[in-house]
Amino acid sequence: MKSTAVYKGHLGADTHLSGDPNKEPISRGVPIAKALERESLLAYEMNGAAIPLLHGAPLRMVIGGWPASTSGKWVNELLIRDRVHDGAKMTGSSYRVPCKPVAPGSKVADEDMCIIESMPVKSLITFPQSGIQIAKGKTLTLRGHAWAGDRRVQRVDISTDFGATWQRAQLKDPANRLAWQRFNAQVPLPQVGYYEVWAKATDSAGVAQPILVPGWNPKGYLNNACHRIAVQVV
Amino acid sequence: MKSTAVYKGHLGADTHLSGDPNKEPISRGVPIAKALERESLLAYEMNGAAIPLLHGAPLRMVIGGWPASTSGKWVNELLIRDRVHDGAKMTGSSYRVPCKPVAPGSKVADEDMCIIESMPVKSLITFPQSGIQIAKGKTLTLRGHAWAGDRRVQRVDISTDFGATWQRAQLKDPANRLAWQRFNAQVPLPQVGYYEVWAKATDSAGVAQPILVPGWNPKGYLNNACHRIAVQVV
Repeated sequence: MKSTAVYKGHLGADTHLSGDPNKEPISRGVPIAKALERESLLAYEMNGAAIPLLHGAPLRMVIGGWPASTSGKWVNELLIRDRVHDGAKMTGSSYRVPCKPVAPGSKVADEDMCIIESMPVKSLITFPQSGIQIAKGKTLTLRGHAWAGDRRVQRVDISTDFGATWQRAQLKDPANRLAWQRFNAQVPLPQVGYYEVWAKATDSAGVAQPILVPGWNPKGYLNNACHRIAVQVV
Repeated sequence: MKSTAVYKGHLGADTHLSGDPNKEPISRGVPIAKALERESLLAYEMNGAAIPLLHGAPLRMVIGGWPASTSGKWVNELLIRDRVHDGAKMTGSSYRVPCKPVAPGSKVADEDMCIIESMPVKSLITFPQSGIQIAKGKTLTLRGHAWAGDRRVQRVDISTDFGATWQRAQLKDPANRLAWQRFNAQVPLPQVGYYEVWAKATDSAGVAQPILVPGWNPKGYLNNACHRIAVQVV
């Protein structure tokens, strides 16, 4: 690379979503510094076998912690740019949000939009599924995953009273930097009735998931509000 | 009082809301133990002057920390009951909620409804009003009141990022037990843009206000969700 390198872009075997060969297919990228991180990969294997076609065979970009669209599939061209890459879906309101917080519905000038980089802290309850019934006197076994973009997840807390009180979950280390982290908890549900069980992750900078959708942006990106499931104790 | 006394009830000069003299006017009350608390009053003065008519002159019941309907105005009759008082608005879904949490829209049997007693922790931002604009570089001066039923407010926290992070407000002692507590904060708003500023109070048992409406009940009582104001930094 020349010393003027600023941004990496990539192109894949995709056509434009419309199928029209005259339209420019998606071409996204990341700053050179992110592309050179140890965890940024061109992957040809997954779990010890050739990477499946649906995952981008024969070659897939992997950019941990950033929007999935930066992890291009079926990669066949790398671009080293001397400016911020301006391929399709790098401009306008594609994967970009207002640089400063704006009121819902605001018109935002193009120069006031910023490319999304590291994703905010988030978690999902993966077990049990919402709507489950459990018997009174049993504790609820809860499991899930949490991640925090370029950061690490510091803690996960569980609430059964709409966030009035929280119980700390057990949180596992990530398999490697930027990997998701598993959590689990034994959740007491003291009486017969209907509960909503919430999970809230907090990252290594002390920033937590919000309970509801955070600030508005034109495309609705970066909604990292807490996930909840309904549980009926019978 | 006889040893069989269980509940206090009261009647006031009110008619039924319909004005129909044949319909029973509201008559609520509280358990004897609550009625005998030092802070439970029959008030004939307020702030050193005769109590105004709108506040219940000549005599008003004051029951701190419980639903306002227990603090009857224009009181002209006290009842000492040997059972839970069953006056108008003491039964059915009046000032009663499901004893156990239920799914939204559930039908709840009469015997599974419980009278609301101490109110949950709550706060209001009283200054500035929502929609205010402030100049970049200024901190926002925020004021409000918080209260917690029979409990005391232990802390109030402020968020400008939808609850991802919180800043502790200054909290004053109550003028006396069960009185509200004032809080204030100097809130930095780092850049031009639109913010929502939230206040969250936590009571002496560690129970906080929820960010959104907590569990459903037929009449929508006990909504102690956090209050927020919109602030534009220009």
